[in-house]
Amino acid sequence: MKLTEQHIEDDNKKSLASQNNSYNFLADSLTSKGHNVDAILSKLSEFQVAVPSWALGAGGTRFGRFSFYGEPSTLQEKIEDVGILHALTQTAGAVSLHIPWDIPTDYKAIKEQADALHIKFDSVNSNTFQDQKNAKESYKFGSLSNTSKAVRDQAIQHNLDVINIGDKLGSKSLTVWLADGSSFPGQNNFQTAFQNTQNSLIDIYAGLPEDWKLLIEYKPYEPNFYSTVIQDWGASLMLANGCGDKAFTLVDLGHHLPNSNIEQIVSILMLKGKLGGFHFNDSKYGDDDLTVGSIKPYALFLIFNELVYGMESNPQNPDLAWMIDASHNIKDPLEDLLQSLEAIQEAYAKALLVDQKELRTAQLENDVTKCQEILQNAFRTDVRPLLAAARLKNGGAINPIQSYRNLAVRETLIKERGKHTIATGL
Amino acid sequence: MKLTEQHIEDDNKKSLASQNNSYNFLADSLTSKGHNVDAILSKLSEFQVAVPSWALGAGGTRFGRFSFYGEPSTLQEKIEDVGILHALTQTAGAVSLHIPWDIPTDYKAIKEQADALHIKFDSVNSNTFQDQKNAKESYKFGSLSNTSKAVRDQAIQHNLDVINIGDKLGSKSLTVWLADGSSFPGQNNFQTAFQNTQNSLIDIYAGLPEDWKLLIEYKPYEPNFYSTVIQDWGASLMLANGCGDKAFTLVDLGHHLPNSNIEQIVSILMLKGKLGGFHFNDSKYGDDDLTVGSIKPYALFLIFNELVYGMESNPQNPDLAWMIDASHNIKDPLEDLLQSLEAIQEAYAKALLVDQKELRTAQLENDVTKCQEILQNAFRTDVRPLLAAARLKNGGAINPIQSYRNLAVRETLIKERGKHTIATGL
Amino acid sequence: MKLTEQHIEDDNKKSLASQNNSYNFLADSLTSKGHNVDAILSKLSEFQVAVPSWALGAGGTRFGRFSFYGEPSTLQEKIEDVGILHALTQTAGAVSLHIPWDIPTDYKAIKEQADALHIKFDSVNSNTFQDQKNAKESYKFGSLSNTSKAVRDQAIQHNLDVINIGDKLGSKSLTVWLADGSSFPGQNNFQTAFQNTQNSLIDIYAGLPEDWKLLIEYKPYEPNFYSTVIQDWGASLMLANGCGDKAFTLVDLGHHLPNSNIEQIVSILMLKGKLGGFHFNDSKYGDDDLTVGSIKPYALFLIFNELVYGMESNPQNPDLAWMIDASHNIKDPLEDLLQSLEAIQEAYAKALLVDQKELRTAQLENDVTKCQEILQNAFRTDVRPLLAAARLKNGGAINPIQSYRNLAVRETLIKERGKHTIATGL
Amino acid sequence: MKLTEQHIEDDNKKSLASQNNSYNFLADSLTSKGHNVDAILSKLSEFQVAVPSWALGAGGTRFGRFSFYGEPSTLQEKIEDVGILHALTQTAGAVSLHIPWDIPTDYKAIKEQADALHIKFDSVNSNTFQDQKNAKESYKFGSLSNTSKAVRDQAIQHNLDVINIGDKLGSKSLTVWLADGSSFPGQNNFQTAFQNTQNSLIDIYAGLPEDWKLLIEYKPYEPNFYSTVIQDWGASLMLANGCGDKAFTLVDLGHHLPNSNIEQIVSILMLKGKLGGFHFNDSKYGDDDLTVGSIKPYALFLIFNELVYGMESNPQNPDLAWMIDASHNIKDPLEDLLQSLEAIQEAYAKALLVDQKELRTAQLENDVTKCQEILQNAFRTDVRPLLAAARLKNGGAINPIQSYRNLAVRETLIKERGKHTIATGL
Repeated sequence: MKLTEQHIEDDNKKSLASQNNSYNFLADSLTSKGHNVDAILSKLSEFQVAVPSWALGAGGTRFGRFSFYGEPSTLQEKIEDVGILHALTQTAGAVSLHIPWDIPTDYKAIKEQADALHIKFDSVNSNTFQDQKNAKESYKFGSLSNTSKAVRDQAIQHNLDVINIGDKLGSKSLTVWLADGSSFPGQNNFQTAFQNTQNSLIDIYAGLPEDWKLLIEYKPYEPNFYSTVIQDWGASLMLANGCGDKAFTLVDLGHHLPNSNIEQIVSILMLKGKLGGFHFNDSKYGDDDLTVGSIKPYALFLIFNELVYGMESNPQNPDLAWMIDASHNIKDPLEDLLQSLEAIQEAYAKALLVDQKELRTAQLENDVTKCQEILQNAFRTDVRPLLAAARLKNGGAINPIQSYRNLAVRETLIKERGKHTIATGL
Repeated sequence: MKLTEQHIEDDNKKSLASQNNSYNFLADSLTSKGHNVDAILSKLSEFQVAVPSWALGAGGTRFGRFSFYGEPSTLQEKIEDVGILHALTQTAGAVSLHIPWDIPTDYKAIKEQADALHIKFDSVNSNTFQDQKNAKESYKFGSLSNTSKAVRDQAIQHNLDVINIGDKLGSKSLTVWLADGSSFPGQNNFQTAFQNTQNSLIDIYAGLPEDWKLLIEYKPYEPNFYSTVIQDWGASLMLANGCGDKAFTLVDLGHHLPNSNIEQIVSILMLKGKLGGFHFNDSKYGDDDLTVGSIKPYALFLIFNELVYGMESNPQNPDLAWMIDASHNIKDPLEDLLQSLEAIQEAYAKALLVDQKELRTAQLENDVTKCQEILQNAFRTDVRPLLAAARLKNGGAINPIQSYRNLAVRETLIKERGKHTIATGL
Repeated sequence: MKLTEQHIEDDNKKSLASQNNSYNFLADSLTSKGHNVDAILSKLSEFQVAVPSWALGAGGTRFGRFSFYGEPSTLQEKIEDVGILHALTQTAGAVSLHIPWDIPTDYKAIKEQADALHIKFDSVNSNTFQDQKNAKESYKFGSLSNTSKAVRDQAIQHNLDVINIGDKLGSKSLTVWLADGSSFPGQNNFQTAFQNTQNSLIDIYAGLPEDWKLLIEYKPYEPNFYSTVIQDWGASLMLANGCGDKAFTLVDLGHHLPNSNIEQIVSILMLKGKLGGFHFNDSKYGDDDLTVGSIKPYALFLIFNELVYGMESNPQNPDLAWMIDASHNIKDPLEDLLQSLEAIQEAYAKALLVDQKELRTAQLENDVTKCQEILQNAFRTDVRPLLAAARLKNGGAINPIQSYRNLAVRETLIKERGKHTIATGL
Repeated sequence: MKLTEQHIEDDNKKSLASQNNSYNFLADSLTSKGHNVDAILSKLSEFQVAVPSWALGAGGTRFGRFSFYGEPSTLQEKIEDVGILHALTQTAGAVSLHIPWDIPTDYKAIKEQADALHIKFDSVNSNTFQDQKNAKESYKFGSLSNTSKAVRDQAIQHNLDVINIGDKLGSKSLTVWLADGSSFPGQNNFQTAFQNTQNSLIDIYAGLPEDWKLLIEYKPYEPNFYSTVIQDWGASLMLANGCGDKAFTLVDLGHHLPNSNIEQIVSILMLKGKLGGFHFNDSKYGDDDLTVGSIKPYALFLIFNELVYGMESNPQNPDLAWMIDASHNIKDPLEDLLQSLEAIQEAYAKALLVDQKELRTAQLENDVTKCQEILQNAFRTDVRPLLAAARLKNGGAINPIQSYRNLAVRETLIKERGKHTIATGL
């Protein structure tokens, strides 16, 4: 199924007058406060977030999985799904592949399909946390950190293969998330595991094309429940520094201990020019992988406040790879992603409304009350008309979820694909 | 210092046109979506939150305290401060006294002062977590739970004294927060401590006037760092049930383990008719006592969503005692309280915008996407013009903090009181 | 495979002298301090913990599962495995079945097999967190709490079926763990969900045989990541009280928010006569389901200290159902269970060494230093010779894991069953 | 008061036979398992932990403080107290001063007093988290990170003064703990605060004598409740690296987010040669500052396991500064410290019993069961006779707390000092 601009334009008609009305009122109000609304609109339009190929089907927990109807069962269908999201939101113009779940059989055809939908291939992701059928070595006791050279070599080679696949598609970075760690005290020698990981990453880094980046993710626990080799940003940064200038830390919002101040981590990494990418989701307890912005939208805004600051003030930090990394256990995955995309744009728009100069002055005066007011004023602004305007500008929907339902997307997908398909990798 | 209506009206003038404009646009928009804006305004106007007498001076941590200028050093000055807050916000029409820090010397004079400022005396708070000078018994090892009958008796008598003081002022409830617990395994016999507490509370309950309530607070830790006798809502409810129909659980937002779902606790307590009161603050780590809404405003909204639901659907639950319970370590305490009052009203207003009927339908259809949309639509609405309108209606300020600064309140207080005053109890 | 007493006796021979030597020294030392070593030995011998039928195969996480060789693929083989554990430890004399994974086809044969191995059928567990093939209704949005009567009825009937199965085998309790909850704010009406759950439990309770108990588990999160209907002991107790005298709360060590004081919960529940059972495991982050005692052995000891106290001082509380509930992702499941059984006995033995009378005196004197010394003295005692003696008394192994390896149990199981079996339910 | 060797020897008499008996049995058993007991004894004897000068009086919380009798009110009396601890334990041969609370008036006299008691001056601690009377600048909004150069300069100068004081006493390191941070979003510019801190530390580092070390502590929260400039080991290490080879990270056990794996942090820092010191305490919730080993003794053992490993395998890491950093709110401070010293030695002794070679082999074979057994076997060993033997060797007490009480130390101190003294800085 393909959503045409005409489909969306037609569906927009009934809310267009109301949207224009709201937008004009908001734009006037913001302009009168000194904001350059056009500049904000441009930034919102340019902001694109990658959808991971594995997020298009229903996820699950260790207690089971409830599948959803009309899931994409091939890479082609997955890209079709991303095309639908992008047509509606104009902010999902990239896909992030997970290998080996999504190895293209016909590279040319896949690239053409993606091009036609204005979708780029963002960072590619390797997988060394599961054993593939017929794999020679097992990752049960680790991959890049394993005490066995044979296992490490297999995991290194897999990452080099992933780079190769990504290179053919136009990707410019490799994201490495390691499950490596231990579930019991004594199981691992921390130093050996760390050094093995460092050496393996150096080998992978050596295979990186000149214009690529290596993004190193961290996570405190799960699926290992005592220790994780790359447990926090400090460990990730150490490993990135050990690789070289093209290696960076990647922050996943759900990969932190309770109560972590993530915005500060983001800020310090950008100061050091070492923040490479970002995985969006939300959580209340652990790596819950819930819809972005569904639990702690103010925290998301605070993080975006640092990202915006960094993008403006830290030329030493490269462009970031943005990706949603959530699991859709009980909602229609496409609706869930539409909600995530909206929440990301909302946080970004609000962060753009923070008057950095005024904030700086208040900080220098230790006017803590005012510092808080400045952030809260930005956050309390209802930016939905702004987001809709940014979408409209590029042919997107005023209200993506409403259009998704009005245009009977899921029903059409079920008709085309059948009910009981299962997305690869799930 | 007393803020007159004229002071405030004058200061409002420059923002009145803009406020009216914003309000009209918002009211039209809400009305077109089916909301009864007048009804919402009425509810906001009626909603009053008590200011605790100890929150008017600078707080501190165990590492020290940085004092603030012009702090109130008598009960009269404290009520003066609450009068200022109420004049500006029209939502702080009550004070909550802490005994023995705020024992009136002249009850008649204090009542007259409060009446003139339209301030009521809300719940009175006892203190058995510190030793008072010349006290016969020490609370070092607990008060109502102490193994010594003499200590328990002293603590019981203190609570009866507090009831007596409150009764003279028109209070209708006693709030009991116990620090009782242990800092080391083995120190306490949990069962003995619990039973002593139950028996002591029964004795206090026996001294409660007919139309009073007993509000029992819970807290997992601090100042005891291994166990606390009333560690959670389950323990508090058990004790309240052990006392009788006039005993209730009081929820303080900061008194929970990491990641607790507080809104669910609130909801279940109201279902059982046992939620008696609420202490507002915010926190990122523990009982941080930060400004309400400064860290997790969406969580506050979700809690208010349950409170609004309960107030409408649970006649079995009595009216609630609302109080701010924050510590003001680095901001002007009055500015901090103004921010808290605004955040509370904001969360309440947004909760009033939730379409409970539509939500119910979406829940019955398991339309999880829509359930989330309904809550987020309410939360994303910019209700500031609504809050200002509610204040204006009663003679309050459009922007309380701005008026507070324009009217040079703190400077005047310093002139009147001097710089180096210290609030009693701090 | 069946381990005979002769196998074990033979294997014990080489360590018997050393064991006797250590035991005698320890027994003398304990006796000289006033302990009745024979009484302790008897208690240790009598203490039996149920092994759950699902814990005999390798577990996994949502990121995958690494299987183990020689897993039991039938109920008969599972009981065989429990028989091996019991032969070695003499403390695993019960099995806890999970329905529908373990429905017997021939009740008589299964009972005879279990009898021959001295294994009883402990609490039976229902499963309404997964959809079974061909089930009419889905539990995707809850089971006993579902807004649909048809779903609730199916879940109630399943529980009644489980009671029926258990009844035929001699079980005397039903354990209900509900995954019911929500992953997004607004998804659930907390009050409706709670009331539906209460009503469903009442229906199940009505089907309970006269001498049965209903055990209600609680858990704060997972697999739902925003709210869980039975989120803590307070909610569980409320539901149990709503059912009647035969309903109790069941505590699973991993089902708590970070930093919870579990021993206090245990103690208060026993005071109220409402603790029904216990699920053992260990964890560092969440419901990690690690080997008992592998992460926080002192916390386990403190819990046992309360259990021992309660068993001695709270006749109002019934006998408890003890069960291991861990997941074995990377160890041989049988070895993992042997380590859990040892850790449980160790904590129990140390708790039996606490001089309750001396502790009571120190508590009454607020001698906090001494209270701590008393608990630490018990915990620091090396009780391994005592545990071995208790096992020896009944024909068990001095060192169960060593014997398990010496007797090549796993190798034999692989020979008998093949490598790539998978336990039902995994 | 001074405890002589004779006092202690006399008091030891009644338990000497029993101690020798237990020790011999344990030593035989350990020897038969291949341990070199004499080597272990030597290591235990050599291990010395500094007592901080502020830990000799009762601590408190923000809710108040309950004082203790006979507290030392001068530096001389504090050193006297450390002398008592050292006489009893032979493991407290150092004191760590806190400036400005403990500035000597007569350096020569203080050094002589300390020498006579065999006490060295360990790391000196600066204090920029409180305002001193008559200080020109306030630390309310930060010290080394403050946006005001005048404040930073005052804080830098204070640290240089502390170095100077320490230098006169023979100290060889400066410990910097910063409370700097923010309590509200927006209050601080994270990058500015970090860079200011880095620059200030570089200035302090420039004033460090050649043979000194700079130890940089980290802490996630408290007394600031939104962000802390040096929030974790990653930030501390970055700052240390920014200073130079003599700057190191200092780990305080209580300064971590819930569920942190501290032993892994320790291990990786030693691998990088950057662990400089260690502050011991214990906690259940936050920075509770409880007696070492009173809550999580197994975690302490696991940390010591890494420390022992690092001390043996990481020559790149310098000798560590060991210090107790606990607060004594309800116990006699000296008794509390005796318990802490015992717990530290216990964890160290058990870590020395880990067979590193056997562990290495099990790790290489991925024999997770055995890895766990090896650690647990060491931990389950009752090492108390070993600790007593190490003390006896140097003239210490078999049972320090018992001797402390038998010798009526506190009573004597009260007689000498009076009841209502208050330790400086409390």
